[in-house]
Amino acid sequence: MSDYSKLCIHTITTKPWDIWTAIEKYQAAGVGGITVWRQWLDGQDIEQVGQAIRAAGIEIVSLCRGGFFPASEQSDLDAAIADNELAIREAAALGAPMIVLVCGAVPGQSLGTSREQIIAGIRAVLPLAEQHGIKLAIEPLHPLYADDRSAINTMETANDVCDEINHPLVGIAADVYHIWWDPNLERELARTAAADRLFAFHICDWRTPTTDLLNDRGLMGEGCIDLSGIRQMVESHGFDGFHEVEVFSDRWWSKDQDEYLAAIQEAWRAYW
Amino acid sequence: MSDYSKLCIHTITTKPWDIWTAIEKYQAAGVGGITVWRQWLDGQDIEQVGQAIRAAGIEIVSLCRGGFFPASEQSDLDAAIADNELAIREAAALGAPMIVLVCGAVPGQSLGTSREQIIAGIRAVLPLAEQHGIKLAIEPLHPLYADDRSAINTMETANDVCDEINHPLVGIAADVYHIWWDPNLERELARTAAADRLFAFHICDWRTPTTDLLNDRGLMGEGCIDLSGIRQMVESHGFDGFHEVEVFSDRWWSKDQDEYLAAIQEAWRAYW
Repeated sequence: MSDYSKLCIHTITTKPWDIWTAIEKYQAAGVGGITVWRQWLDGQDIEQVGQAIRAAGIEIVSLCRGGFFPASEQSDLDAAIADNELAIREAAALGAPMIVLVCGAVPGQSLGTSREQIIAGIRAVLPLAEQHGIKLAIEPLHPLYADDRSAINTMETANDVCDEINHPLVGIAADVYHIWWDPNLERELARTAAADRLFAFHICDWRTPTTDLLNDRGLMGEGCIDLSGIRQMVESHGFDGFHEVEVFSDRWWSKDQDEYLAAIQEAWRAYW
Repeated sequence: MSDYSKLCIHTITTKPWDIWTAIEKYQAAGVGGITVWRQWLDGQDIEQVGQAIRAAGIEIVSLCRGGFFPASEQSDLDAAIADNELAIREAAALGAPMIVLVCGAVPGQSLGTSREQIIAGIRAVLPLAEQHGIKLAIEPLHPLYADDRSAINTMETANDVCDEINHPLVGIAADVYHIWWDPNLERELARTAAADRLFAFHICDWRTPTTDLLNDRGLMGEGCIDLSGIRQMVESHGFDGFHEVEVFSDRWWSKDQDEYLAAIQEAWRAYW
């Protein structure tokens, strides 16, 4: 029997499946962990979903996603903080130990200003995160998304922001899609690990050519990312958490999802 | 009369126009400079093209493009060097003082290996560049293009490579599209200037949403790039060369190119 104990799948990876189908299918496949996207909780009793996941023997790795703190209007800044507080309460109800933050950016606003708003936003929600013991994982996004998704685009900047906030509940979610190209990756992963803040590790692949800026990711092995090299770096620094498959793919979403899950597991076996 | 003396247009910007039409139209519009893409010289008498450009009172800023050094086979490495030597001869025939290098990358080959091949390739063609006095400008490309277009994705890496080669003919072409998001931009532009290697400055804009990874650039003002901020940085370090409009845009290419040239000039007036 292959070992899927460290395999975590994001619910968005198998987007056509609702939360109940995902739980059932992941359990039947022996998948060890799940990261739940908030949309999958819409209209659900969140505590009941958490209980069902645990009853299926699946570990809840994180709730995805909070963030999007920057805005040009005060009312929007306030709304972002309120939404992140809601996410913290949802994570607590679900029994998720962590929230992944896609930090946000506003086209035309300087990235420096956005980063200040991100830091202020995280600080504002930290008391509630402390109360529930929920970790907040900043996910640096590829510079491709610097216009409207995140002003934190490298591991270096994520580390800088974490240094500034300096709180044990604030760390980093490292996703190979966003960081694979970075010449400073080894240095910054070491820095992340030394600060005990490598909270999550996401895997997928970068396809050539990539035909869509959002939804054309590949499964591990379908692209050019040196997955074994990055995995080695991460594990050499003591990371022993889940390796989370987070793939946005119109191509895969259009296929039979049972076959897709089998393909994910095949890619996992080659990866693992 | 508006001042277009520092406005340079890349022939690919007005892709539907052949070289003779471009020369005629740019001259009539008072455009000060031209960067000629090599495809525009196919089947032409290159010296004659150069004479026509000079006779039109337009300055030849550079020949675009050389590079693409990395390869997995020795024969392809050799072919790349031969092609770059050809580009140097073409630049000399045209009367262009500089070649822009899109340095290249091979999907699945480590970016470190590709960078070593780039450095070796540039060193191999330097004797011919010296003979003709042609500058070689490394253009760092956005990390979005790290899979198959360039293993040099930040100003920092471009500076590192230039430091390693350490030759007065090897410098950097800074294109806002590729570098606008970089938190280390100010530091690395200062480093570039201090080493007297800021050879070229390309402008355009980053649209939100960007719908194509290659051919959806915007004219200055159509996107989120802080053009005046970057221009200020560049000029504060003494750059007084051309500001080169390099826009790949299916949207603009599909329009009447006379109207497009007028739009470029309007965007220039707002920029300048």
